[in-house]
Amino acid sequence: MKVAVVGTGVIGESWARLFLAHGHEVVATDPAPGARPRLLDAVTFVDDPAAAVAGADFVQENGPERLEVKHELLAVLDAAARPDVVIASSSSTLRPTDIARGAPDHPERVLVGHPFNPPHLVPLVEVVPGERTSETAVDAAMAFYTSVGRTPLRLRAELPGHLANRLQAALWREAYSLVERGVATVADVDTAITEGPGLRWAAVGPIAGQHLSGGAGGLGHVLEHLGPGTEALWADLGSPTMTPELAERLVTQVTDAVTDPDALLARRDAVIRAALEARRSG
Amino acid sequence: MKVAVVGTGVIGESWARLFLAHGHEVVATDPAPGARPRLLDAVTFVDDPAAAVAGADFVQENGPERLEVKHELLAVLDAAARPDVVIASSSSTLRPTDIARGAPDHPERVLVGHPFNPPHLVPLVEVVPGERTSETAVDAAMAFYTSVGRTPLRLRAELPGHLANRLQAALWREAYSLVERGVATVADVDTAITEGPGLRWAAVGPIAGQHLSGGAGGLGHVLEHLGPGTEALWADLGSPTMTPELAERLVTQVTDAVTDPDALLARRDAVIRAALEARRSG
Repeated sequence: MKVAVVGTGVIGESWARLFLAHGHEVVATDPAPGARPRLLDAVTFVDDPAAAVAGADFVQENGPERLEVKHELLAVLDAAARPDVVIASSSSTLRPTDIARGAPDHPERVLVGHPFNPPHLVPLVEVVPGERTSETAVDAAMAFYTSVGRTPLRLRAELPGHLANRLQAALWREAYSLVERGVATVADVDTAITEGPGLRWAAVGPIAGQHLSGGAGGLGHVLEHLGPGTEALWADLGSPTMTPELAERLVTQVTDAVTDPDALLARRDAVIRAALEARRSG
Repeated sequence: MKVAVVGTGVIGESWARLFLAHGHEVVATDPAPGARPRLLDAVTFVDDPAAAVAGADFVQENGPERLEVKHELLAVLDAAARPDVVIASSSSTLRPTDIARGAPDHPERVLVGHPFNPPHLVPLVEVVPGERTSETAVDAAMAFYTSVGRTPLRLRAELPGHLANRLQAALWREAYSLVERGVATVADVDTAITEGPGLRWAAVGPIAGQHLSGGAGGLGHVLEHLGPGTEALWADLGSPTMTPELAERLVTQVTDAVTDPDALLARRDAVIRAALEARRSG
């Protein structure tokens, strides 16, 4: 299969790596100067986005997160790609219905296929249909992502942040609030997750985890016994304001905490690989 | 060293297993009928809590989460344990200052040492001093937990839910809200975490993760470019009400999703072990 990767920043490059690893031919394009030399040897790079998608069987678009830029790009892709080919946008912030307005000819093949960094390791792809997306396009995208070893999750609604980023944002909000209040540091927050619940979340989701913690009574027991405490705790959670002072405090503290970003990235990838391997064996 | 485990439910039993694995002598006590036969052979079980802590060098208390019960128990433990011995409570919901009021003789040796299930695998122990807790007791608890392979995190304030459970509660709130709105199922939420950010959180904390995602600009770049979007997203997050209907929906959906709890527990433990091993090697 020939897959077009439109936009070859960090996410596009990682997608390209994934598609190549699964035996696909990859044609890439990116208007940014210097984009070409960063890419893997096996990728065909073309300057013209129309040429990149002309013979493609699947298009993964990773352009800037600005609607007017997406619309300009989509108009070109929609005109050049075969009408039956899915155009999946990696957008994390835009609604597929809005993106698809840039493809007046075939809006039914436009959807969001939102990956998590790095896409060649993290399996989740949020597949979000817009109002005009066809079932055929959704099915094709689900099948394609599954074929390259991903776990596509079809969302039931268009929501700001899709799904996983909403859950992350909720956690970040309380984390930032604790730092704002001065009752925890960035290092405290990160340690609390990586040494605690984060280790479980690589295997068991947050609600299934509560279910397991309830013993024979499961989640019903948990909600009955901890329910009132949980609502009191919710009421105590914070709502930080992202002032320049808070931003500076966060940046200072995280820079102190992450002394070797490359080593942490390598550790991240090693742990993800080990967790995935343990899941496959289990 | 002799360690007293007071209360031998799920958490107490897991603590006992950890202490035994590190070569300590464990004396356990629990008023519940049938508590003794569940325990590991190597644990000495005594009916009298005073006798259990009389010769102990560290006391880990895992009684019911009710202040009056803690106070009755603490009075006995405080009178019977050597005055220099730390009494650490596994409490997830009570403040150490409140718990210590049950130990009028030596409140300075009372603190919270809150583990994460299962404590013999998950390293985090939140160490929370109360208003009257001595630095000596905090230092002793930090050293003891470190000696049994845990990662003690000393908290800077007494907060409802300590630290990690506040972060979890924030995530659960949004998860329940999405289920309440009918825009996601329990399985969707759990998949979004275990296939996505959960895999990263086993290695890299939520704020360090944002820092890494910002490339050379780090968290400063992320806050500058995504900051306004993040605040808009925060404003869109939900505040569910835990009605009987919502509880029933959550329980029904999680029961459908978790068809084999024993297999999931085994998978959880295998993944935690694999992630910890990969971190040690990395």
